[in-house]
Amino acid sequence: MDKNSISQHISRQYNTELEDIRNKVMSMGGMVEQQVVDAVRSLVEGDERLADVVVNNDYKVNAMEVAIDEECNVILARRQPAAGDLRLLVAVIKTITDLERIGDEAERIARMALHINDKSQVDRFHGRIEHLGELAGKMLKGALNTFARMDAEMAVEVWREDLKLDKEYDGIMRQLITLMMEDNRSIPSALDTMWAARSLERIGDRARNICEYVIYLVRGKDVRHTSLEQMEAEARNK
Amino acid sequence: MDKNSISQHISRQYNTELEDIRNKVMSMGGMVEQQVVDAVRSLVEGDERLADVVVNNDYKVNAMEVAIDEECNVILARRQPAAGDLRLLVAVIKTITDLERIGDEAERIARMALHINDKSQVDRFHGRIEHLGELAGKMLKGALNTFARMDAEMAVEVWREDLKLDKEYDGIMRQLITLMMEDNRSIPSALDTMWAARSLERIGDRARNICEYVIYLVRGKDVRHTSLEQMEAEARNK
Repeated sequence: MDKNSISQHISRQYNTELEDIRNKVMSMGGMVEQQVVDAVRSLVEGDERLADVVVNNDYKVNAMEVAIDEECNVILARRQPAAGDLRLLVAVIKTITDLERIGDEAERIARMALHINDKSQVDRFHGRIEHLGELAGKMLKGALNTFARMDAEMAVEVWREDLKLDKEYDGIMRQLITLMMEDNRSIPSALDTMWAARSLERIGDRARNICEYVIYLVRGKDVRHTSLEQMEAEARNK
Repeated sequence: MDKNSISQHISRQYNTELEDIRNKVMSMGGMVEQQVVDAVRSLVEGDERLADVVVNNDYKVNAMEVAIDEECNVILARRQPAAGDLRLLVAVIKTITDLERIGDEAERIARMALHINDKSQVDRFHGRIEHLGELAGKMLKGALNTFARMDAEMAVEVWREDLKLDKEYDGIMRQLITLMMEDNRSIPSALDTMWAARSLERIGDRARNICEYVIYLVRGKDVRHTSLEQMEAEARNK
């Protein structure tokens, strides 16, 4: 889809509707980003008050998903969009599903912050979890920027970041297993830290999904389930 | 959507297209079901050959998702469906995403079967993992039947099964933690068993998602993010 095609509609009202959907996705994305940042901070700093805020805010993310989904359905039914607009709406429906699930992961991390009893055992992982959280947050931000600009090359770059995140995740998991084997009293809190790391790794996967929808939207090709090399070729193939 | 509305289209060709989509979803669902059954069997019986089959079959599931997705887009663009048909197509797009991700979980379980080195330590969990796999498989089958019959009451019943699965999952996790604390040599294989249990729990969550789409499709109400009680009320509210 041409970047400007959205502004080429005959109906000004229809344009406004599509713009409104895009803005709402961005605003939902911003809310989810904040949830991830707060969740990681609550875990790393042991801030239970902040963890509560994250848990209590999740319903807002869910409500936004339902509202945007409904709005897409109304536009699909009323405007019967073709080609590019249709792809945009399908991409929106998929993107908000991933954003909502990222919100669920943030909630899970915040619950871990409330749940970890013996914090001292996992203190030494704070730095690494924080770093993993930064990588996941950066990917999410990148995916949202990619969506805002409909930029397929940027999408590939963000997509690539997932390799870095996976590597960091593997390193943390190995260290946690070592800790558990050295000191079995650490097992419950080390497991909680594992689940939190897993959630952050999943957030990266979901950000990558969003990048794939953008590439599909821009290029009209389905890049899911292809190798990174093929994907880069698709993204370059203007 | 009325159960028979699909057969009330003016265009016979359009009917055929919608029927074809539904059949393809069912056939994708059947393939995913088999993947889950085989993955659990490969893990429980330590059958590496079967695990390989599951890992190697995942691309077929992925290919089906892409093909159905594309077919939905073509119908959306060409037929510009309204109301019930539109909801059906949106539900299909969401359902196949969950089916594909269930396929990914099956692949993860199969990889665990290839990965677990010291099988003796987790032998005693085989029965419980098998049972968890049966519960997850039953939910998936139920969700697919629900989709085939467009039956909202049945969807609520299947949805309910997830509580049972979650309880069983919690029990297994507690036992595995105990095992790990008693014998730290068991930690690596116990962790693998945990990931497999987690995958089965996720399969239940995704089967539940499919039930929610069916309720939405049949009733035109969005039941996601509501409590079970509200959901049952929605399902009964004809």
